[in-house]
Amino acid sequence: MRLVSVVLALSALFLESAPAGLTPEHEAHAVELREHALGSERAYAFLESLTVEVGPRLAGSPGDARAVAWAEKKLTSLGFDKVWREPVAVRGWERGPAQLRVLSPYPQALHITALGGSVATPVEGIRGVVTIFPDLKALEAASPSQVKDRIVFINARMAATRDGRGYGVVVRGRTHGAAVAGKLGARAVLIRSVGTGTARLPHTGVMQYRKGIPRIPAAALSIPDANQLEAMLRRGDVEVHLGLQSRDLGEATSYNVIGEFRGSTRPEELVLLGAHLDSWDEGTGALDDGFGLAVVAEAARLVGAFRSRPSRTVRVVFYANEENGGKGAKAYVNAHRDEFARHVVAAESDAGGGRIWRVDTRFSKRGADAGDVLSRLLGALGIERGTNQATGGPDISILRQYGVPLVTLAQDATTYFDHHHTADDTLDKVDRAALRQNVAAYVVYVWVLANWEGDLRPVP
Amino acid sequence: MRLVSVVLALSALFLESAPAGLTPEHEAHAVELREHALGSERAYAFLESLTVEVGPRLAGSPGDARAVAWAEKKLTSLGFDKVWREPVAVRGWERGPAQLRVLSPYPQALHITALGGSVATPVEGIRGVVTIFPDLKALEAASPSQVKDRIVFINARMAATRDGRGYGVVVRGRTHGAAVAGKLGARAVLIRSVGTGTARLPHTGVMQYRKGIPRIPAAALSIPDANQLEAMLRRGDVEVHLGLQSRDLGEATSYNVIGEFRGSTRPEELVLLGAHLDSWDEGTGALDDGFGLAVVAEAARLVGAFRSRPSRTVRVVFYANEENGGKGAKAYVNAHRDEFARHVVAAESDAGGGRIWRVDTRFSKRGADAGDVLSRLLGALGIERGTNQATGGPDISILRQYGVPLVTLAQDATTYFDHHHTADDTLDKVDRAALRQNVAAYVVYVWVLANWEGDLRPVP
Repeated sequence: MRLVSVVLALSALFLESAPAGLTPEHEAHAVELREHALGSERAYAFLESLTVEVGPRLAGSPGDARAVAWAEKKLTSLGFDKVWREPVAVRGWERGPAQLRVLSPYPQALHITALGGSVATPVEGIRGVVTIFPDLKALEAASPSQVKDRIVFINARMAATRDGRGYGVVVRGRTHGAAVAGKLGARAVLIRSVGTGTARLPHTGVMQYRKGIPRIPAAALSIPDANQLEAMLRRGDVEVHLGLQSRDLGEATSYNVIGEFRGSTRPEELVLLGAHLDSWDEGTGALDDGFGLAVVAEAARLVGAFRSRPSRTVRVVFYANEENGGKGAKAYVNAHRDEFARHVVAAESDAGGGRIWRVDTRFSKRGADAGDVLSRLLGALGIERGTNQATGGPDISILRQYGVPLVTLAQDATTYFDHHHTADDTLDKVDRAALRQNVAAYVVYVWVLANWEGDLRPVP
Repeated sequence: MRLVSVVLALSALFLESAPAGLTPEHEAHAVELREHALGSERAYAFLESLTVEVGPRLAGSPGDARAVAWAEKKLTSLGFDKVWREPVAVRGWERGPAQLRVLSPYPQALHITALGGSVATPVEGIRGVVTIFPDLKALEAASPSQVKDRIVFINARMAATRDGRGYGVVVRGRTHGAAVAGKLGARAVLIRSVGTGTARLPHTGVMQYRKGIPRIPAAALSIPDANQLEAMLRRGDVEVHLGLQSRDLGEATSYNVIGEFRGSTRPEELVLLGAHLDSWDEGTGALDDGFGLAVVAEAARLVGAFRSRPSRTVRVVFYANEENGGKGAKAYVNAHRDEFARHVVAAESDAGGGRIWRVDTRFSKRGADAGDVLSRLLGALGIERGTNQATGGPDISILRQYGVPLVTLAQDATTYFDHHHTADDTLDKVDRAALRQNVAAYVVYVWVLANWEGDLRPVP
């Protein structure tokens, strides 16, 4: 017995604290939870309720206010121990009607939508001759004489890939096109939708003006309409008429909605699961990000409702205003900065409705074992081990600078941008089997890390 | 030599005229034309030109007038011997904006479009509580007390099939829903789009009022929006606000555009190929029926440009007003009734952009050999032999009552109704390989029957 004691003491010294890892019982529970999640339609019911009963919910809109009330009620009804809202100052914006008409040489209407935050045109609209650029870089290299008084058309094509990287390549044209074109004297900017869908539904998304540069109207053409305009421009000059009736609605209040299941032995420490409550206004936000909300809420509920509570607290954050400002993430940081040392790990679901195919972590070296266990338990869901360079999603990546370890459960994004940010982001696009697989993966994430013995910090 | 002469004389007697059939040289030419068609992109270039340079072309609209001018110019440039237009009296109709807003209990906008020919709502719109019916039959069985002052919603689902028969089953609700609901005292009628697509683009199409029954506004919800309304109605009463700003534009003139390649030995006899020039106003009519126009124009051109002209004349008819009135087909009958005895056979391409999978004929018994030869030559294109009960399409079926033999080259319609009659009927939906296969099939049809020795009449 003496020898054993010495060994244990030495081990403890070597490990700096209690033995790291997960007990066999906890690992068995993780498997049980995972298999249970694969058989449950509850996340789908959550998502159906959100998309039907709330629908579009752009931050600062009446739909957003309904979403906040709905979320509080829903999390409460799901049995969360504690549910509350935290205010987030946002800027309201209304899309309004958008028209683009080719005046000559081939008169016809093209389908467009305003980019998020765009100013309106004058009431009578804007007439102009179109100048096409293959991408933002080409526009940046243009001279004012090429662009002055023109309507600029950035026709950059996005590639569909599993990791969604095509989006990042092309989205700069949406974000900065108006500023670059405005500086060169353009009257307005049109972009080819930053998406991969073939439906005649344009893709919106946030854009930014720059100080000191004229604010020009900005809109996106659907992919077939971008093809149509491109085909006309191959034949010669094209004159169009553009009308946007967007409105800045000024300051408004939205809310982060937060729910918790309290941990059994270390309730002050928490595992965070995030997704965003707001959506763009044209679809019902089924994929972006109703899917994510359903995944994290149901994963937390399954863990919270299981016969034995995990050691740590499980916190679900429904972020406000991810789409048109990102103010929810900042508000969360401001309100919870002093808790970050007790944020054991954070993960976020905000990449559509595809199956999870890879798990990335950002853990300390000694936390690598946790990655091994996660990876082993997720392997049964067809999920492969990725890197230790997880960056989180748009709402939690900011936590990294506060030293919070991160997990990214990467979804297959091959078809995500077929519907993303369009009116087509609706419930019928959701793959129920993929939804169940996502819940199963998040339940493993929550359970393992809410019971993990050992420190995942400092993060690299 | 004498015996031979006797045999020939007896054969001629037995066959009632010259030897029926196709010469080996003509059959070899058919194969050559077919293979040439499979390698040509000219039909696609035709279709691209139509959709880009004309685009939407609802009969009686300015786009329709541009389409007529474009068609005359295009057929002339393709080398047709003779190109002309024939007037068709049509009724103009303008779609105008359409809005449907759920007022309670789940406020949100749903995507709708007016049915073709619908009256407008009053300027301030119509408010009403929705009553759902699974199909027109259920509505027909309803009592006035169930429907009075309600907004009726016919939620019939269409099945996707290769032969497109699902459309005929459900389309009655679109055509007659307003009359049936109007008779029962409804304020307006909404239908689930008669289509199979999942894009949030509603499906329009013609509807009819009945004498003595109040004319109520009629609109279609896209499939995702129909699902949304159905999901709300499962939860309880739903009140909506409907606004349609459609307008009857009164009488207008459109044109059938006709082109011919003159036959070498029997120019007074003709083989007819039809398709329709008009389209609904929301898409660019790439599939309905730009595809058909491209197929018949290019098939005729290939035959006309071939080193030896066929015996009979090849006539291409671009019918006016197939979509919103069918007046082009009637005008053709009125103008050409006295030529029908010399219409050797007619076929029409108006079923989208799918590959041809079956050939049906409507020939006399002694014409069955022509079906055999067609079938043999089309087999190489993956086309199987169908029945001898061909009915033609919407523009040529009327010719049957005048004794004109018919051929139907049936296209695979499995995905046609994903885009048909929606804004999504655009060039990018066209399968170029299917287009080439269609041209190859029509070229066989034209060549074989423009050179066939023997009578296909009387038709059964």
